[in-house]
Amino acid sequence: MNNSESSNFDKMSFIPVSPESHFPIQNLPYGVFSTADNPQQRIGVAIGDQILDLGVVKSLFEGPVLRNQQNVFAESALNAFMGLGRAAWSEARQTIQNLLSADTPTLRDNASLRERAIVPQSSATMHVPARIGDYTDFYSSKNHAFNVGVMFRGKDNALMPNWTHIPVGYHGRASSVVVSGTPIRRPNGQTRPDETQPPVFTACKLFDFELEMAFLTGPATKLGEPIPMDKVEDHIFGMVLMNDWSARDIQKWEYVPLGPFLGKNFGTTVSPWVVTMDALKPFVTKNMPQDPKPLPYLTHEDDYNFDISLEVAIMCDGLSSPATICRSNFSNMYWTMKQQLAHHTVTGCNINPGDLMGSGTISGEMEDSFGSMLELCWKGTKTIELENGVTRKFLKDGDEVIMTGFCNGNGYKVGFGTCVGKVLPALPM
Amino acid sequence: MNNSESSNFDKMSFIPVSPESHFPIQNLPYGVFSTADNPQQRIGVAIGDQILDLGVVKSLFEGPVLRNQQNVFAESALNAFMGLGRAAWSEARQTIQNLLSADTPTLRDNASLRERAIVPQSSATMHVPARIGDYTDFYSSKNHAFNVGVMFRGKDNALMPNWTHIPVGYHGRASSVVVSGTPIRRPNGQTRPDETQPPVFTACKLFDFELEMAFLTGPATKLGEPIPMDKVEDHIFGMVLMNDWSARDIQKWEYVPLGPFLGKNFGTTVSPWVVTMDALKPFVTKNMPQDPKPLPYLTHEDDYNFDISLEVAIMCDGLSSPATICRSNFSNMYWTMKQQLAHHTVTGCNINPGDLMGSGTISGEMEDSFGSMLELCWKGTKTIELENGVTRKFLKDGDEVIMTGFCNGNGYKVGFGTCVGKVLPALPM
Repeated sequence: MNNSESSNFDKMSFIPVSPESHFPIQNLPYGVFSTADNPQQRIGVAIGDQILDLGVVKSLFEGPVLRNQQNVFAESALNAFMGLGRAAWSEARQTIQNLLSADTPTLRDNASLRERAIVPQSSATMHVPARIGDYTDFYSSKNHAFNVGVMFRGKDNALMPNWTHIPVGYHGRASSVVVSGTPIRRPNGQTRPDETQPPVFTACKLFDFELEMAFLTGPATKLGEPIPMDKVEDHIFGMVLMNDWSARDIQKWEYVPLGPFLGKNFGTTVSPWVVTMDALKPFVTKNMPQDPKPLPYLTHEDDYNFDISLEVAIMCDGLSSPATICRSNFSNMYWTMKQQLAHHTVTGCNINPGDLMGSGTISGEMEDSFGSMLELCWKGTKTIELENGVTRKFLKDGDEVIMTGFCNGNGYKVGFGTCVGKVLPALPM
Repeated sequence: MNNSESSNFDKMSFIPVSPESHFPIQNLPYGVFSTADNPQQRIGVAIGDQILDLGVVKSLFEGPVLRNQQNVFAESALNAFMGLGRAAWSEARQTIQNLLSADTPTLRDNASLRERAIVPQSSATMHVPARIGDYTDFYSSKNHAFNVGVMFRGKDNALMPNWTHIPVGYHGRASSVVVSGTPIRRPNGQTRPDETQPPVFTACKLFDFELEMAFLTGPATKLGEPIPMDKVEDHIFGMVLMNDWSARDIQKWEYVPLGPFLGKNFGTTVSPWVVTMDALKPFVTKNMPQDPKPLPYLTHEDDYNFDISLEVAIMCDGLSSPATICRSNFSNMYWTMKQQLAHHTVTGCNINPGDLMGSGTISGEMEDSFGSMLELCWKGTKTIELENGVTRKFLKDGDEVIMTGFCNGNGYKVGFGTCVGKVLPALPM
């Protein structure tokens, strides 16, 4: 852990924060929420188990960048703020840290302002934090790509020849990105379980999650203008947890030669709080060694990997509490987010604030660190033990998948909360 | 040709329309335009070489559906109007036909209103007609899929086993969809021209167009709720021409196993005028025979194929006028748009107004009907003769690709205008 920022955080917040909370003053993630008495979607920052409503305090952003841009905090999504860029993000973080500090009276001693500006998380409904224009999903965990390759093509051809040269990725469906807590319906679709027989129309039988994280982009670029590696960090705003729900049987039949389509487009769940790269900076860790050395447009010398502990648990009938089935870490990523974004835009592909860029399934080396049921049950050949004799291969109706992730600081956590979704039964056919 | 609607069109417009125009009163396509003296993007309808500015005449939409929705015509994109659904679309068409009719004095005899409401196309800048939330590209011309298959996998394995069972498609990049006239920069990217050597970073050497059409979607659906086949037509608003620019060498190296990504995301050009399905109805033609018979969720008995003549021409140095290199027809589509949309949503994937759904390259059976340079030059093994001894295999810098399409009516055309883009040289590396 790099403690370069720690001196900024000596001050505590006047809002009580438990040591186990994901949202101490060191974090300050952004989200979009509404409440029963005010259904307007609005921007907030999580602090402990409370939310600071930025729309209410927007006039307090008086720094040189934001004093003429305060209205970005009165929007119903984070896109406009994300589009302002790094100077605005840093200034906002400083203002909010100061405002929430135990030493600053502005909010602390103004009961009427506090009443309006501080909202309990328990009374809030969270929303997708940005209008997602485009969603891209990468495939950047080597263990995951290798595992899937072994299952489908054998050990010798597990990794495609391009995999170690480019951060392989594909365009996903933006309309079906939903916020944590949204139930996901098991899809019906076309599969071909028996290759000697015609395909069939059926409810998905191999329903899976994928443990991913994703970053959200900052300022827009113009079509035809790549983001060079030395500028790419300025376009990475922050990160969320992501569950890339997958219908393996639909995917298997459809994906050649144009890639996953219906096997992935029925729902992608993101956690509601966007943790900024500023908050994650103390948890930078070594990049994974890359062999062969990537081409210059994909090369950066600084570390841009992050030590983020990740877990997946399942809650279902027969369990008294969620059973953890996967313990992984974001640092299992072979390709960095900087490499992903430099690659994505090298052709001149333009980005907009709030584009969502998924990591791909984050699997570690150990069997209990695999980030999907497909790998955990090794294509159905193994049984995953939950608890009390409850077992799974793929997901059943009613299963709730609970992902969580956090960085361990010195006496505090910088966390992402949870990314949760429950499987609804398929529609009758 | 089905003349069921022809009685509605006996009246001419008081605005002169040449018999060769793509935009007679039988067409009435919607677009978004601005002018030098009014840079506000606004909604218009093409009539001859003029535009009717719908924002100016919105109070004249007094039918039962639109009289409380007139503000959809004051928007800067078509999404809100598209979202209203078929009853609104039909009513709008009737109102506009009546307003432009030679027999209707409202606009004809009101010089001041005409002055404000009628804008010459020559003075207008066109824009992408809708905010495209999601862009999907299908692969539904059997000739194209077969040709590409033969080139890459040989004749015996040309069509993948799934191709005749599902309308194969993939998610594309929405941010880089641009309107006709926007220059497209040749991308730089990673390719592997020699498989015995490491990959290289280079300007694309196999730059191509793809002749496509696309439909834009109507009313939004909810996540988890498929559109059944008997409702799917209500969600298809209208069509445009589309050029799915392709970097074949980048695509070839990257596309396994997740499909095309950077080979396609640097630009997709659409024609500015959205021709409605109502205007295309007289040009319905037989669906292509399908063997094997599709599964019930993909089956419809009515014809939903369209006789739309398509051409691609190239203009470049050395030519006095554009040289036509491809004559195809939309009726070459194996899968119908109804089948595409029913398939896309069968898993519960939700759509929004203004989603863009591409056909895939539209190739006919004859060699001069192939819809891409890749097929026309058969992977570089043939030379395409333009004129005056000018030849091509793939596109060169400065080449302008001009697509056009129209339906031949009885003494009139219902057309799409042109979809044009010029190739800019790659950025220096």
